[in-house]
Amino acid sequence: MRFTSHMDLALEEARSAAARGEVPVGAVLVDPSGRVVASAGNRTRELNDPSAHAEVLVIRQACAAAGSERLPGHDLYVTLEPCPFCAALIAATRIARLYYGAGDPKSGGVAQGPRIFSHAQAHHVPEIYDGLAGDEAAQLLKAFFAARR
Amino acid sequence: MRFTSHMDLALEEARSAAARGEVPVGAVLVDPSGRVVASAGNRTRELNDPSAHAEVLVIRQACAAAGSERLPGHDLYVTLEPCPFCAALIAATRIARLYYGAGDPKSGGVAQGPRIFSHAQAHHVPEIYDGLAGDEAAQLLKAFFAARR
Repeated sequence: MRFTSHMDLALEEARSAAARGEVPVGAVLVDPSGRVVASAGNRTRELNDPSAHAEVLVIRQACAAAGSERLPGHDLYVTLEPCPFCAALIAATRIARLYYGAGDPKSGGVAQGPRIFSHAQAHHVPEIYDGLAGDEAAQLLKAFFAARR
Repeated sequence: MRFTSHMDLALEEARSAAARGEVPVGAVLVDPSGRVVASAGNRTRELNDPSAHAEVLVIRQACAAAGSERLPGHDLYVTLEPCPFCAALIAATRIARLYYGAGDPKSGGVAQGPRIFSHAQAHHVPEIYDGLAGDEAAQLLKAFFAARR
């Protein structure tokens, strides 16, 4: 139940991102007590910042609030499989658990391509749970890109 | 000559980072006309931002100034082999040429580990030139970590 509501919030962030013309991906970061400490959708276009993926935004926000470069014990919910960039940041930040929705054959870096967590250069590997609300997350992306063609 | 002076500036940024207690890595971004548009050293500790690697800082700065998420035709000089996080951002940003100094067996993501540019999920591959002032860059890192032990 708790997992579902966190992913629901991530989906809301993804829908808000789409409404802003951003690729619809949303992320939610939850601290060890279960409190949502950050939520965001992509803002790369708005900010002209190629690093402003949803995952990066919530991690930066939570680290700034915590006064730390690391977030041990935190859970990250994201609607899409993280790209290699975000996956490597998740490792660096020591996120405990990663829940993601849809797989991303084109740009994913967790279950395919560089498989960031499968190399010794990833100094931490989170527990990974995929497919949570995956159909809904994938549908959002599909509708977004279909409307742009 | 031009290449050397850009890497010299990156080394200066690395030395400044060490003086601030940051891992000594420096980066310089050069636009297609040869103008230095951004230079930075690591600031992860100062900013409590695990994404504040030298490469990310120069890319974010240059993108904000250019009003664009991409930097085609730009050259990036960095004293250390980029980590998977930075390498993936370099791909996303469409940096044309990557010059780096020392290899990084522990955390590198270009020539080892996830080898970010060797997968289809990297949508762009820069020209890569390694070993530029590599000894000096490696020495800076070695001295920094030796002093902390």
